[in-house]
Amino acid sequence: MSNVKNLAKKAKIAARTLSVLDTEAKNSALEAIASQLLADKETILQANGKDLDNGKKMGLSPSLLDRLALTSARIDGMVEGIKQVVELEDPVGQVMETWQRPNGLEIAKVRVPMGVIGMVYEARPNVTVDTCALCLKAGSAVVLRGSSSALNSNRALVSAIKKGLAKTAIPEDTVQFVDSEDRGAVDEMLRLNGLLDLVIPRGGAGLIRRVVENATVPVIETGVGNCHVYVDVDADPGMALEILLNAKCQRYGVCNAAESLLVHEGIAANWLPGAVQELNTRGVEIRGCSKVVEILSGVKKAEDSDWATEFLSPVLAIKVVKDFQDALDHIQQYSSGHSESIVTNNQNTAAEFLRQVDAAAVYHNASTRFTDGFEYGFGAEIGISTQKLHARGPMGLRELTSYKYVVKGTGQVRP
Amino acid sequence: MSNVKNLAKKAKIAARTLSVLDTEAKNSALEAIASQLLADKETILQANGKDLDNGKKMGLSPSLLDRLALTSARIDGMVEGIKQVVELEDPVGQVMETWQRPNGLEIAKVRVPMGVIGMVYEARPNVTVDTCALCLKAGSAVVLRGSSSALNSNRALVSAIKKGLAKTAIPEDTVQFVDSEDRGAVDEMLRLNGLLDLVIPRGGAGLIRRVVENATVPVIETGVGNCHVYVDVDADPGMALEILLNAKCQRYGVCNAAESLLVHEGIAANWLPGAVQELNTRGVEIRGCSKVVEILSGVKKAEDSDWATEFLSPVLAIKVVKDFQDALDHIQQYSSGHSESIVTNNQNTAAEFLRQVDAAAVYHNASTRFTDGFEYGFGAEIGISTQKLHARGPMGLRELTSYKYVVKGTGQVRP
Repeated sequence: MSNVKNLAKKAKIAARTLSVLDTEAKNSALEAIASQLLADKETILQANGKDLDNGKKMGLSPSLLDRLALTSARIDGMVEGIKQVVELEDPVGQVMETWQRPNGLEIAKVRVPMGVIGMVYEARPNVTVDTCALCLKAGSAVVLRGSSSALNSNRALVSAIKKGLAKTAIPEDTVQFVDSEDRGAVDEMLRLNGLLDLVIPRGGAGLIRRVVENATVPVIETGVGNCHVYVDVDADPGMALEILLNAKCQRYGVCNAAESLLVHEGIAANWLPGAVQELNTRGVEIRGCSKVVEILSGVKKAEDSDWATEFLSPVLAIKVVKDFQDALDHIQQYSSGHSESIVTNNQNTAAEFLRQVDAAAVYHNASTRFTDGFEYGFGAEIGISTQKLHARGPMGLRELTSYKYVVKGTGQVRP
Repeated sequence: MSNVKNLAKKAKIAARTLSVLDTEAKNSALEAIASQLLADKETILQANGKDLDNGKKMGLSPSLLDRLALTSARIDGMVEGIKQVVELEDPVGQVMETWQRPNGLEIAKVRVPMGVIGMVYEARPNVTVDTCALCLKAGSAVVLRGSSSALNSNRALVSAIKKGLAKTAIPEDTVQFVDSEDRGAVDEMLRLNGLLDLVIPRGGAGLIRRVVENATVPVIETGVGNCHVYVDVDADPGMALEILLNAKCQRYGVCNAAESLLVHEGIAANWLPGAVQELNTRGVEIRGCSKVVEILSGVKKAEDSDWATEFLSPVLAIKVVKDFQDALDHIQQYSSGHSESIVTNNQNTAAEFLRQVDAAAVYHNASTRFTDGFEYGFGAEIGISTQKLHARGPMGLRELTSYKYVVKGTGQVRP
């Protein structure tokens, strides 16, 4: 048996023990992990130092090196994150619905753990700790495969996690780490039907595509966000500007940032010049449709591909639309189904936007940047789903669970 | 653009119109389909006649020919099925939850259509009609790919469905039929990410494996059921016999039929001989563990592979277990996670079984045969999921939907 398959088998066996532990047992195991991470801080930082050295030799960009870097404070942050997960309500065992059938059968729909969750992720070592905390609290074992650039850091973090678990009711085997730089190990992991119940990719578009294309186990696709802000003719101009600047500029490299602005032509000539001036001040490059170029000389003309691009950088595509329907059509054509926002004081227009736009999150008079597990009050987030199956938008603990039907009878048979 | 991709594109565009139709518009379109099927009965039966002739020439088995055959009464049955779907509650637009955040944002989680659903299925032409009715009522367009043995029948049914839709608010393009015997068309369909939101396979294990292995769009795996009945030491002997006979013999070729019987050794010597006699009367072949062979001379010894086999026929594997834990271990090892039943009057044992067994449906003192959308009161069923992602067990209208977050603000931006 290959190494990866063997790890997954161990995880599946351990998951059975984990699945029936009560909340207290799971919480005290999480506390033990937190303590061990603090106790092993020096070892973890040393391991991270090796990764940083290797990364510099490999010529990683400063921003990638920053994402890779651990500090004492960042480890404290991970520990803080675990403590927050301890505080969260345990979804396992929650009764979602109950009903009785005419034949007397009593049916309950009950939340249960997913089983074994595979996580394939890039760069940031904190994902290792966050994922373990969330999956364990949700009652599932986890098979982790991080990027090779963080191999030493992840190895040290997993070692601390397992040392922590060794003293608790959660079996060490519930956390498995694919300790290999071989890409073939990922492909094998993605095809472990019967052992993995779910794989979640977290990283860039390339990683996510690779996982979606190669997996035969169920996948939740995450992350790609080509989000729009639509400023309607009935928008409050000041509010529209604030929402736009927040959605575009509060952070550039995130999936819930705006990539395109749509402006109703009835407000464009008055509102757009001031808005673009503010964007320019912040260093945002504009790519406009022909009408934008007419209104604002010197603005670069957008290519067709710009409307479909998740820039993840200080670039914004702007289009003047002739009416609400034109805005809807554009969004329907180019949206990645992540987060879409309308700014308007017209309640009817807003209602139609919220009803007709097909995205994980639709906003009226608020920034797209709110699509986030913490901002929604889930207390945590393992990723943002951009597919419609199982979970859509921010995924917290509950979205990491499945359910089963528990049926009680008194000897009923089917006629 | 290939033909299959073109069909899916048309479906996606039409799905947008369908997604915002109200219940009344959808119901009257379903009524129109029902009327058209009745009006086109002769044409449909003629087309089916061609398939039956071809099937006979190809040497299809009598049971496959029976599954393929349509009669006036079977078409009436399809129409009756559509009328039942009309009566079902529309899940689209249901508000699942609402809450307010400290910053004043109001969040609602609202059920929305899946979008475009692909269905890959075998043999029975009624699946064509059932699938259309369920998907359309759930607000989704559908791309159908039936088996080549039913090509003429399916073509005639889809033609009637589209003629019915032509007079209604639901666009004809919401129903697409892959009118091809080319297997490559299925493989292409399974990789239409961005156009298909979900593919559901319905058919034998081979078809399901093929879909799971080749799809890059999200799949819901259905159908395989290696189900157990466990007769505990504290079982009522009469009830245990009734449940076993129902679970095994009421229908052999279905996924929720029992394939293995586990008997506690404390009850085996007394109870098993009578039970096996009843099974023999019904023509069921027994394959027993060494203890069963000891108790009952003449019983065939089970091979290891028998414990893992979904016989779908009058064959039952029987194992004597030494205690409850032994039963749990066996089920955990061999269960396909479909339906598992315990017969016992011991409430504690029952509670542990219901808690620890990991299956879509777990039963206490009831037959596994109840795992079914109609028996659960869903009013319909598009299949029985055997995976944990999205839906588990019987899938009705609600399981064919997704959700979105509708967020209302007053100008909130993220700090």
